[in-house]
Amino acid sequence: MTKTLIHNARLEGRKVDLLISNGLIEQISPEIVAPEAEVFEAEGLAVMPAFYNMHTHAAMTLMRSWCEDLPLFDWLNNIWKREAELTPDDIYCGTRLAILEMIKSGTVFFADMYWHSSAVAAAAENMKVRANVGMCFVDSLSQKTIEQNFDFAKQYAKGGQSLVSIGIAPHAIYTCGADLYRKCFEFARENDLLFHTHLAETQKEVEDCLKNNGKRPVEYLNDLGVLDNKTLAAHCVHLSAKEAEILSRTQTTIVHNPCSNMKLASGVFNSLQAQSCGCNIALGTDGTSSNNNLSMIEEMKFASLLAKSHYGNPQAGKAEEVFQWATLNGAKAVGLNAGEVKEGMLADLIFVNLDNERLLPDNDLVSSMVYSADSRCIDSVMCNGNFLMKHGYIEAEEEIIEQARRYNKSK
Amino acid sequence: MTKTLIHNARLEGRKVDLLISNGLIEQISPEIVAPEAEVFEAEGLAVMPAFYNMHTHAAMTLMRSWCEDLPLFDWLNNIWKREAELTPDDIYCGTRLAILEMIKSGTVFFADMYWHSSAVAAAAENMKVRANVGMCFVDSLSQKTIEQNFDFAKQYAKGGQSLVSIGIAPHAIYTCGADLYRKCFEFARENDLLFHTHLAETQKEVEDCLKNNGKRPVEYLNDLGVLDNKTLAAHCVHLSAKEAEILSRTQTTIVHNPCSNMKLASGVFNSLQAQSCGCNIALGTDGTSSNNNLSMIEEMKFASLLAKSHYGNPQAGKAEEVFQWATLNGAKAVGLNAGEVKEGMLADLIFVNLDNERLLPDNDLVSSMVYSADSRCIDSVMCNGNFLMKHGYIEAEEEIIEQARRYNKSK
Repeated sequence: MTKTLIHNARLEGRKVDLLISNGLIEQISPEIVAPEAEVFEAEGLAVMPAFYNMHTHAAMTLMRSWCEDLPLFDWLNNIWKREAELTPDDIYCGTRLAILEMIKSGTVFFADMYWHSSAVAAAAENMKVRANVGMCFVDSLSQKTIEQNFDFAKQYAKGGQSLVSIGIAPHAIYTCGADLYRKCFEFARENDLLFHTHLAETQKEVEDCLKNNGKRPVEYLNDLGVLDNKTLAAHCVHLSAKEAEILSRTQTTIVHNPCSNMKLASGVFNSLQAQSCGCNIALGTDGTSSNNNLSMIEEMKFASLLAKSHYGNPQAGKAEEVFQWATLNGAKAVGLNAGEVKEGMLADLIFVNLDNERLLPDNDLVSSMVYSADSRCIDSVMCNGNFLMKHGYIEAEEEIIEQARRYNKSK
Repeated sequence: MTKTLIHNARLEGRKVDLLISNGLIEQISPEIVAPEAEVFEAEGLAVMPAFYNMHTHAAMTLMRSWCEDLPLFDWLNNIWKREAELTPDDIYCGTRLAILEMIKSGTVFFADMYWHSSAVAAAAENMKVRANVGMCFVDSLSQKTIEQNFDFAKQYAKGGQSLVSIGIAPHAIYTCGADLYRKCFEFARENDLLFHTHLAETQKEVEDCLKNNGKRPVEYLNDLGVLDNKTLAAHCVHLSAKEAEILSRTQTTIVHNPCSNMKLASGVFNSLQAQSCGCNIALGTDGTSSNNNLSMIEEMKFASLLAKSHYGNPQAGKAEEVFQWATLNGAKAVGLNAGEVKEGMLADLIFVNLDNERLLPDNDLVSSMVYSADSRCIDSVMCNGNFLMKHGYIEAEEEIIEQARRYNKSK
């Protein structure tokens, strides 16, 4: 792998060079001499950690802005009908469109949950991003399909793909029984795979769980023994104090999806409670059908402003905090040494254009990224030391757009 | 003025040509022959109405991302201190930076409220956008300054500037007494100028008003006789049913600023109440210090998602409705025949790139603009028949950026 010398980037107010080698930030220094390295001129650009989108259903880009503003169950019925028709080719096409959008807005990792995992994994490999491809499980799958999925997961691990891994993702407590949860978790732990589920998203889920199991959703999953430090629990909107405590103790990562929770009117995540319990909070966009984009920049602003509004406190959801949710805390959840620009960490980086009007004047860059920026501020994106986007351009972007357009015309 | 022929644009699913003449949309038809017109090739672009930002303090771009996440009064004290130091040159520089940002995100009109109005007006003229330059009034101004402001407003009207007008903008009921409100309103009506004020923004304002005047803020201003169909009331977060009724009856325009209200934790505007009363609701970004950008695209998404979340109803804040708040309702508030793409209306238009990944697949363009788009989707912007931005480029943008950078360095 060639070395890259990032020349004259702005890092927290200083001008520095960065030497990138073997996917890592090898050195950061005011001046680095490395004649063997390819030079990337970063004059006028600031270097920051890239974003980790910790909960999404990438291929749902295909259903963007389709059946909007409906009551929840009418909407779900429409979406499910269309999802049932998706082929692996469609999912490859939709996932590539999603990844294109994520790279354009500075994201280099996504934790997915969907069907036809081989197509999702192929799209991620093709686009050279990091991904955890969560295989979705529900009770209605046949025993044979479940075994086939497990086989695929085992085989995939042997393929030696370093950026893409498989996750085991039982959908939710209202679509998966206790047996399926236990079986999935056992398999995940035997094979050291990420475990990923929807949890405590709506009030109805909590009420049904209390009725059916005599306990709340997090208590229920904790009693099943399926929460640990390699578990992503998406949403966690409706948590009792005791449940927040359980998530902290088990080191489960809470993935907060503010846009989706607001758009579907699911409720407001109690971020202050989770923070005061010491939970690891990460951010996700959820699928485009309930967002409708995959921008972590926008998600940070929603996370922050929703907290301020919800608590009636302009000091809630501070810019520095939500920026960490979108970067470091996501990387931590999947055991990657990334999310900060430091020597020895993974070279998952964004380069932002300091001449963009949204970042001027240059008072506080983190604050401007959270409250002011949009994807036009992102000049270049690096993942594992490799440029995914250089000066706004992504290889093969025209082809991906053309393919998405063809998919739509064929429906 | 030259005619422009917009060739092959997408309008609500159809391919059309548009003939632009004298600042108006003269004709829309599948094929227009106009050999005398300049041709703008719009293949791959959809034409939509441009945005009207109905409440802002443009020059506050200079304080973007400065003193963040503080308690309200600490923040205000910091801002006020810095504002006191601003020169007319600073305000010209900050307002041009703001206008650059607005054009990039598809906005062609802003209703401002600030100091040094001649500098604000000069910036708007220089950038060829529409603006209503609200002159801010507070009790602490001397009688002489008030008279000078009134003189400026009268003189400006005589200058024959067609896109920029002056507004009379008493700041708020907690900074302006009854006499100043009456005097300002009388002057505004004598000279047919827009009247613009902050109203019912915080719970504290309501409580103080009840204590001091025995009535709520809207009742108080209504009794002073200063609410009518050429009045913008910014915020209106805390309204009783009776107050919403008054605003509807007087045809006062409510300017909703969801980002600012959330960021400052001021409360949540009761949009369903205002809608059911038949109020004219428009949208504004407020100043960048409490947002921190001027994007109406983002403001629409916040307006919609905040309503859904607040009412626990995914059918609140529908995309079509908030799009109208951001376009037609703003134009209506200032008596301009704009906000829709129809023959005879003002040619205030945006051209959006249908190849942008955020607008794909092409299921519902209005929905995608509200929920998914960002400024990268805007290809070109026209105001009064004149291109302010063509294919992403605005004349003199480098100079404006350079000037903003110099301002910051000098502080």
